[in-house]
Amino acid sequence: MRIAIDMDEVLADPLKKFIKLYNRDYGIPLDTLIDPGNEVYHHVPEHLDHKWYEYINEKGFFRDLDVIEGSVEALKKLQEQHEVYIVSAAMEFRNSLEDKLDWLAEHFPFISWENIIFCGNKIIDADVLIDDRIKNFNHFKGRTLLFSSPHNLLITGYERVDTWQQVLEKLYVEA
Amino acid sequence: MRIAIDMDEVLADPLKKFIKLYNRDYGIPLDTLIDPGNEVYHHVPEHLDHKWYEYINEKGFFRDLDVIEGSVEALKKLQEQHEVYIVSAAMEFRNSLEDKLDWLAEHFPFISWENIIFCGNKIIDADVLIDDRIKNFNHFKGRTLLFSSPHNLLITGYERVDTWQQVLEKLYVEA
Repeated sequence: MRIAIDMDEVLADPLKKFIKLYNRDYGIPLDTLIDPGNEVYHHVPEHLDHKWYEYINEKGFFRDLDVIEGSVEALKKLQEQHEVYIVSAAMEFRNSLEDKLDWLAEHFPFISWENIIFCGNKIIDADVLIDDRIKNFNHFKGRTLLFSSPHNLLITGYERVDTWQQVLEKLYVEA
Repeated sequence: MRIAIDMDEVLADPLKKFIKLYNRDYGIPLDTLIDPGNEVYHHVPEHLDHKWYEYINEKGFFRDLDVIEGSVEALKKLQEQHEVYIVSAAMEFRNSLEDKLDWLAEHFPFISWENIIFCGNKIIDADVLIDDRIKNFNHFKGRTLLFSSPHNLLITGYERVDTWQQVLEKLYVEA
C-alpha cells in the first residue's frame, strides 16, 4: 500500500513555533491553547493576526520545528509494510523548501529523497493520505485520514486519527 | 484533462549549461553535440566525467537555464483547455529547489504555485506525463509522451514528441 503523509501539524509542529514567536515579540502566553475550530491567529489581538504570515515566510521558520509525538517511530513501522511518502504543500512558501528538506533529513533520515514531494494541490497517486487540512483531500481519490489538530476539531464526516498510535492501529498489521 | 510536464530538457535546457561550464573550466567546445543515446559526460575526458554532478549541485545552476523552444507558448495554449502541472524530480538536488521555483516564476508566471510539484518518484495522478526520462514513467499510470533529448534518441517503444509543436498537435484542439 502507498501512504502519503502531510508534514505540518502531522509530522512537524508549527503551532508551537507560532506561539513562541508571538510570545517573543508580543508577550502572548506560551501556554496559549487554541480553541477547537480556531487557528493561531484567532488567539492574538486583531492587529497582530497577519504576523503569522510574516513568520512563516521567514527563512528558518520550518527548520527547528518540534516533531509530532510518535511520528518517527510510526513512520519506521509503516515503512516496514508500506511505501511511505511525505507530501507537503510547501510550494506556497518559497523559503520553506530547503528548511523542510533539511528538517526531514534530520528527523526522518530513513525517508529517501525519492519519497518526498513538495507541491501545491496534492494530485498524488496513493492509497491513503494522512493530512490535517480537508482542502488537501479535494484532489485525492484514495482513503483519507484527518489528523486531528485544533483547527479541524469541529469538522465531522471524515475518518479521523488523533495520534500516531491510532494511525498504526489502522494501517500497521502487528506480526 | 490533467497534463504533468517535466522541467529539465523539456522546459529548461541544462544540457547547454553543462557544455558552457565544461567550456569555461576545461575548454570543451561550445558547439559540442551529444551523440544519440549519450549523456553530456560521455563527451568529456574521462577524468572530468564526474564534474557534471558538482555543477548541478551548485547554487544558481538551474536559475539561468535557457527555455526550451516553444514551451512557453505551448503551455499557455494547453492551459486554455487542460489542467497543467509542472512535475520535476528536483528533490535529488537540494540546492535546485529555490532556483527552479524562481526560474518558473520568471518564465512561466502563469503557472500557479498550486500547480508545481517537486518530487522524487513521480507518483502523480494525471492523464498525461511529458518527460524525457523513461524512468519517470515507472510510477505513472496515464499516457506518456517521451520528449526527445539526445540521451533518449535510441529508445523505442514509447510515444514520442520531438518539439512543443508536436505536443500541441496531440493535445491541443484548434478552435
